[in-house]
Amino acid sequence: MPADILGKLAAILGPSGLITDPADLAPKLRDHRGRYAGAAAFAVRPARVADLAAAMALLYEAGVPMVPQGGNTGLVGGATPDGSGREVLILTDRLRQIRAVDPAGDTITVEAGCLLAEVQAAAEAAGRHYAVSLASEGSCTIGGNLSTNAGGIHVLRYGNTREQVLGLEVVLPDGRLWHGLRALRKDNTGYDLKHLFIGAEGTLGVITAACLKLWPRPAGRAVAFCAVSDVAAAVALLGRLRGAAGEALTAFELIPEIGLGFVLRHMPGRRRPLAAPSPWYVLTEIASQGADQQAVLEAALGTAIADGLVQDAAIAASDAQAAALWALREDMSDAQRPEGASLKHDVSIPVPGIAGFVAAAEASVRARDPGVRIVCFGHVGDGNLHFNLSQPLGASPADFLARTEEFAQLVHDIVHAHAGSISAEHGLGRLKVEEITRYHDQVEIDLKRRIKTAFDPKGLMNPGKVVRQ
Amino acid sequence: MPADILGKLAAILGPSGLITDPADLAPKLRDHRGRYAGAAAFAVRPARVADLAAAMALLYEAGVPMVPQGGNTGLVGGATPDGSGREVLILTDRLRQIRAVDPAGDTITVEAGCLLAEVQAAAEAAGRHYAVSLASEGSCTIGGNLSTNAGGIHVLRYGNTREQVLGLEVVLPDGRLWHGLRALRKDNTGYDLKHLFIGAEGTLGVITAACLKLWPRPAGRAVAFCAVSDVAAAVALLGRLRGAAGEALTAFELIPEIGLGFVLRHMPGRRRPLAAPSPWYVLTEIASQGADQQAVLEAALGTAIADGLVQDAAIAASDAQAAALWALREDMSDAQRPEGASLKHDVSIPVPGIAGFVAAAEASVRARDPGVRIVCFGHVGDGNLHFNLSQPLGASPADFLARTEEFAQLVHDIVHAHAGSISAEHGLGRLKVEEITRYHDQVEIDLKRRIKTAFDPKGLMNPGKVVRQ
Repeated sequence: MPADILGKLAAILGPSGLITDPADLAPKLRDHRGRYAGAAAFAVRPARVADLAAAMALLYEAGVPMVPQGGNTGLVGGATPDGSGREVLILTDRLRQIRAVDPAGDTITVEAGCLLAEVQAAAEAAGRHYAVSLASEGSCTIGGNLSTNAGGIHVLRYGNTREQVLGLEVVLPDGRLWHGLRALRKDNTGYDLKHLFIGAEGTLGVITAACLKLWPRPAGRAVAFCAVSDVAAAVALLGRLRGAAGEALTAFELIPEIGLGFVLRHMPGRRRPLAAPSPWYVLTEIASQGADQQAVLEAALGTAIADGLVQDAAIAASDAQAAALWALREDMSDAQRPEGASLKHDVSIPVPGIAGFVAAAEASVRARDPGVRIVCFGHVGDGNLHFNLSQPLGASPADFLARTEEFAQLVHDIVHAHAGSISAEHGLGRLKVEEITRYHDQVEIDLKRRIKTAFDPKGLMNPGKVVRQ
Repeated sequence: MPADILGKLAAILGPSGLITDPADLAPKLRDHRGRYAGAAAFAVRPARVADLAAAMALLYEAGVPMVPQGGNTGLVGGATPDGSGREVLILTDRLRQIRAVDPAGDTITVEAGCLLAEVQAAAEAAGRHYAVSLASEGSCTIGGNLSTNAGGIHVLRYGNTREQVLGLEVVLPDGRLWHGLRALRKDNTGYDLKHLFIGAEGTLGVITAACLKLWPRPAGRAVAFCAVSDVAAAVALLGRLRGAAGEALTAFELIPEIGLGFVLRHMPGRRRPLAAPSPWYVLTEIASQGADQQAVLEAALGTAIADGLVQDAAIAASDAQAAALWALREDMSDAQRPEGASLKHDVSIPVPGIAGFVAAAEASVRARDPGVRIVCFGHVGDGNLHFNLSQPLGASPADFLARTEEFAQLVHDIVHAHAGSISAEHGLGRLKVEEITRYHDQVEIDLKRRIKTAFDPKGLMNPGKVVRQ
């Protein structure tokens, strides 16, 4: 790295725009789950997009590799630098303006460093709804959401983060700015560049701002917690509710008894919503403009109980009850922690294949190690399961974590055989960058490399993530 | 072209797989509107994807430029070969299998040559709904819809063709096959290749099949025809109906009195739906799973009339009445033909800017030529207007057509000043490939060229369309 680069960057970025103190850098050099730790020469922390562009032009010219980081809540090591100490972190937390809220046009224009919860709140304040919701919404940034195409609990109705985007502003690796911040619902003027940057995990440039869709605020919602005897019954119930409620079906989450048990054991104040335990549960929500959500849900579940598809169901009678039901689902991931080490598999399967996949994956895991506790839950409405494995009771956490690759291959091979994806909503990052080459064919790998090379010929943007050059 | 290439292609494609007779080729060498005419050495017409891949490998190796063509209903010359006679047409009409309909997974997998209407019908037969609907649905192909990211009348609710796509199968320029035919709602495994091919107008490869989303069939619909005094009132009404009906608002179309007059004059059997003429009308539709569409629409329009926002409204009391109201909108384009030459501008504007855009564009056109008859209609709910100009009464059609570029620049400069797009749903094709460089900055042009070169280094795929290399 050129000796004078820090001085030049300081002149561009101002006194708060550089972090060089190792103590200040330290928390940004580890990922959220503590799986990866790296080093960084320093971090740039621009307050304005133009400053970031100037800084990146300088770094690119000097051949310095750059790693963008938002809220550092990612689960695949995508925002953690390598161990070389050569890489420079790019922090977006000062790019935090909500530039415009336009309720008439149903759009909001925000900078990358805005927290997801801040964007949700700004939309609500304008009488609108920003549709992405996920567990880390209080600490993850919109820039990170965009770069990982974040999913969450309402994809069934509103789509992923990708589907919310009308326009982007991006600093390219060489510091040039792409002015793609459009607010148009229809624009067919050549290749859709924004979709390349969404989900690219910062390997093609740094997203600095986005124009996002807003939705009407649902007038009300109905939430139910249902007992079903198996995964096939859950999938059948999904079909029925979609038939009854159409797009108003907003969430459809699968929960296993073991996961509910972990929540009840470890999370204070939670209580069992149904009298009798059941192997599986479904948490579902209908939200719409009309006032009939409760009636639609009651009627559909009444029929499903009469038909034996659902064994029991509790419909929330108040917002507080709805929140209590949702808390059971939201705690599912955290409640695994006190149970020891866990191996997480964020997979998706075409919905009709879900029951077959779960049966096959359970059988394979049990055949490999009957002590492993399978905690399979998630967004069945989108075909997205978190097929998590908690360590055998009493086993060593380190021994179980050492089997990460073994179980990943076992589970992911079954995912692949069911035409699924080994990364539904978390991305590839560093964790799966090699593994994906086992499942994608050579043509796809080649096309992705060509894109990477076309946009980042020097390979300086978040190297070693998503695609190896 | 190598002398023996026809023989090799015949061996691959079989007796019906090549068209060499000039009489058979002729209808495929002109575009739908008769603006472009070209020549082709011959056409390949594969019955199987593997045959197309083998043929393209041969053509690529020989350096032969290729022009894909679906239903030949495009409006920008994107499927018409140039005049050199060197280009070869690739016809998809024999790739016409509906490979799978999966109502449980809400997907349909179809080959590129299927007509849009065939896909709609297959979805209906399975109790589902394919959401794209447009005037040429009886003759346009899904491959063409995908390659132009076709819009239509229900984008407001369901999005463009792009938003319907889960996976694609594509033959690359060099004949390799990309197996991207996934059926997943969530898949974050690197750059999203499908979004590059969608809307690329065949310049990056030939889409051969797609896995598309299906939707629940709406249980019923309510359709109304409303008189409003100006465009601002129409936009205000859009906001109100979206507030009342949420995503159930399925269509919101602006119609001018002059356009309605053309339809009543030229299209047999049409009648005026409201007693008194009005400068502008809105045709709107609400469709949902519930049974309350009619009530929601009546209540919202009742309030709007009481507030003076709407002057009068007719709500269809039967499917036949709804169809009659829709016919007025669907005939709008054809009804311009008997009025002489017309210049069409397919533009989009952020919704809050629509009234300002229409006022500015009308004033500029009138200042340039007061005799020009402005027929501005379209999908206001998506910000998409067809700002069409019919020739002055009694003027020469040829003289008016000679002013195509003059009026395009006049209208498109105003679009650009209103942060709009000069091609909302028709694409760039050959018509706007140069013009777009006036409105896109150098960074965007450069990125698009890099993509083109990365995917098609020899420049053989639909040359001269979308982007100039």
